[in-house]
Amino acid sequence: MTFRFQLHHTDTATGARRGTFTTPHGPVETPGFMPVGTQGTVKGLTIDHVASTGAHMILGNTYHLGLRPGHETVRALGGLHAMSGWEGPILTDSGGFQVFSLKGINKISEHSVVFRSHIDGALIDLTPEHSIEIQESLGSDVAMVLDHVVALPAERDDVQQAMERSIRWAKRCLEYASRDDQAKFAIVQGGLDVDLRVQCARDLASMNFEGYAVGGLSVGETPDEMYRITAATTPELPADKPRYLMGVGRPIDLLESIVRGIDLFDCVMPTRNGRNGFAFTDSGPIKIRNAKHKTDTSPLDASCDCLACTRHSRGYLRHLFIAGEMLGPTLLSLHNLTYYQKVMRGAREAIRAGTLVEYIATKKNQWGIT
Amino acid sequence: MTFRFQLHHTDTATGARRGTFTTPHGPVETPGFMPVGTQGTVKGLTIDHVASTGAHMILGNTYHLGLRPGHETVRALGGLHAMSGWEGPILTDSGGFQVFSLKGINKISEHSVVFRSHIDGALIDLTPEHSIEIQESLGSDVAMVLDHVVALPAERDDVQQAMERSIRWAKRCLEYASRDDQAKFAIVQGGLDVDLRVQCARDLASMNFEGYAVGGLSVGETPDEMYRITAATTPELPADKPRYLMGVGRPIDLLESIVRGIDLFDCVMPTRNGRNGFAFTDSGPIKIRNAKHKTDTSPLDASCDCLACTRHSRGYLRHLFIAGEMLGPTLLSLHNLTYYQKVMRGAREAIRAGTLVEYIATKKNQWGIT
Repeated sequence: MTFRFQLHHTDTATGARRGTFTTPHGPVETPGFMPVGTQGTVKGLTIDHVASTGAHMILGNTYHLGLRPGHETVRALGGLHAMSGWEGPILTDSGGFQVFSLKGINKISEHSVVFRSHIDGALIDLTPEHSIEIQESLGSDVAMVLDHVVALPAERDDVQQAMERSIRWAKRCLEYASRDDQAKFAIVQGGLDVDLRVQCARDLASMNFEGYAVGGLSVGETPDEMYRITAATTPELPADKPRYLMGVGRPIDLLESIVRGIDLFDCVMPTRNGRNGFAFTDSGPIKIRNAKHKTDTSPLDASCDCLACTRHSRGYLRHLFIAGEMLGPTLLSLHNLTYYQKVMRGAREAIRAGTLVEYIATKKNQWGIT
Repeated sequence: MTFRFQLHHTDTATGARRGTFTTPHGPVETPGFMPVGTQGTVKGLTIDHVASTGAHMILGNTYHLGLRPGHETVRALGGLHAMSGWEGPILTDSGGFQVFSLKGINKISEHSVVFRSHIDGALIDLTPEHSIEIQESLGSDVAMVLDHVVALPAERDDVQQAMERSIRWAKRCLEYASRDDQAKFAIVQGGLDVDLRVQCARDLASMNFEGYAVGGLSVGETPDEMYRITAATTPELPADKPRYLMGVGRPIDLLESIVRGIDLFDCVMPTRNGRNGFAFTDSGPIKIRNAKHKTDTSPLDASCDCLACTRHSRGYLRHLFIAGEMLGPTLLSLHNLTYYQKVMRGAREAIRAGTLVEYIATKKNQWGIT
């Protein structure tokens, strides 16, 4: 079997799981965090940098890569692995989230969503089948089904119709897909309604997907609402398949969602915040542009072994940002991704040791979260 | 002795020299090329990237670092080596070239040049002594004297007065300097007048500098004029001291100047052109944004062992530039600096083997220069 999900431990005190998801490009230890490589590159980092953070699987965006350079070009360059040089596992999203969250929507129907390219204004007709076609050209290890995402808050009827359409689209994706070396993950929708989420999860669980995602969250609802929906959804998903919470989030969100049975995450936060001079550390967040770091010779995070922390001072990192040097965003992105992987590695070790609750309490204390 | 210049070979067919310049932070093999780290970072590259190109010594800009973060801040961060993390030799320029080429000059006198900061408009009074004071705070291995650079073309009288002032300022720098672990290099001025250049070189050669630079070139004159002035100047400089041609240049300019007795170079061209999508290769220049590279799976330069060439295709590099991704400028800067170092390594080996003329003929043929 090309794909395999082995569950090593399930925490009895929480819903947390420790597992290994095996793909054609290698294993992914779970709980795991995927850096986002929107346009076929994790912004500002070389592939060696990304590997040095400890990341196992990275994410590519079907919407962006489908528009530029275009899926035929990616295919001509040997697929996303050969093109980007990343030899490990890759997951691609379906384009649904981008299409429905950008401003270019022209028409939504049962058949497809028609939108305008943000690059050249061209009208694009994105069907579930076309999303899979693009992802098959990209050649990712995991393809996501096209889903209909509604902005929240929304009327229950709208949420329900989008959720039901997402189920039908998921089925069309599964039927259209032709690559045995590409896993298909379904996406649970249903807004903030537990009964819609449960219905969606059950319907999708009855189909033969290699994994399941919780989508349509981290779109402005409170963390507690997100945790509540996640906690209500995961018990309805097959225990022997990986579960992926899309687009989440802050380090604390990762830990709170691991407790609720999530195995995989992706988020732009470590790289986007890094580019903006914001670092995640064991002493809480640091704004590196702050004047107090001007002559500080201490490292960003003394317990971190990334290039930014082992070779450079806070004073130098601040200088790079104040002077507008590219190296600043690169180093803080590298640090933040290294930090995220360290938090995930700590969570995996804590699940194995049966100390996850204590681990989370320690991290919350370090981060100043009460 | 803290500084030593050992001449291993002097080419009998040309004026080329093969040597080793020893500094407190290690040896610099000559002929050698210094990447430019204007603000304490070679733009877009980590220090590990810079080291991987084969660079021995890098350059920092006194003008830029003196304004931001300021020399007191660099000193508080342990000097430029500790601040930037670069453990090899560093040369700093004097600020003269930037002050005289930027638009902010307020007043030039025998005492100093007064200019407005391009950052906050503050009036700065830059004396020869202050330039050395800044460079002593930076703690570079080599400090350059403050020189008076005139834009070309110019009246002979203006060129002569600036040249004579540069000699007096060089003497003031030498007298003011207090760090034994920092070499002082004088700068020959004199525009395109051979007799002024010769007079300046002789006057400076009579003072005890650890090295000599040819300045005020590569400012718009033709390559042949630059070669002519260089050829007329180097015979007047002490044979046992390193000779540095400032701000030069294209790969062919490096080779033509090595032939004329130059040992050291610096230039922003490999990094600036790299950021603009222009690559130097053994098959001549490549504009990576060109549409013909869209689906090209071949490397930028098959004979290059840099990350860009060993892990990525022309098609991918083009995509990064078209998509505006930071990784494109990073990879092409890395490649160009690697290429420059390879050209210099080839020149050193050719001098040793007595085949420099043939080496240059081969490179010109590869680059399409007749």
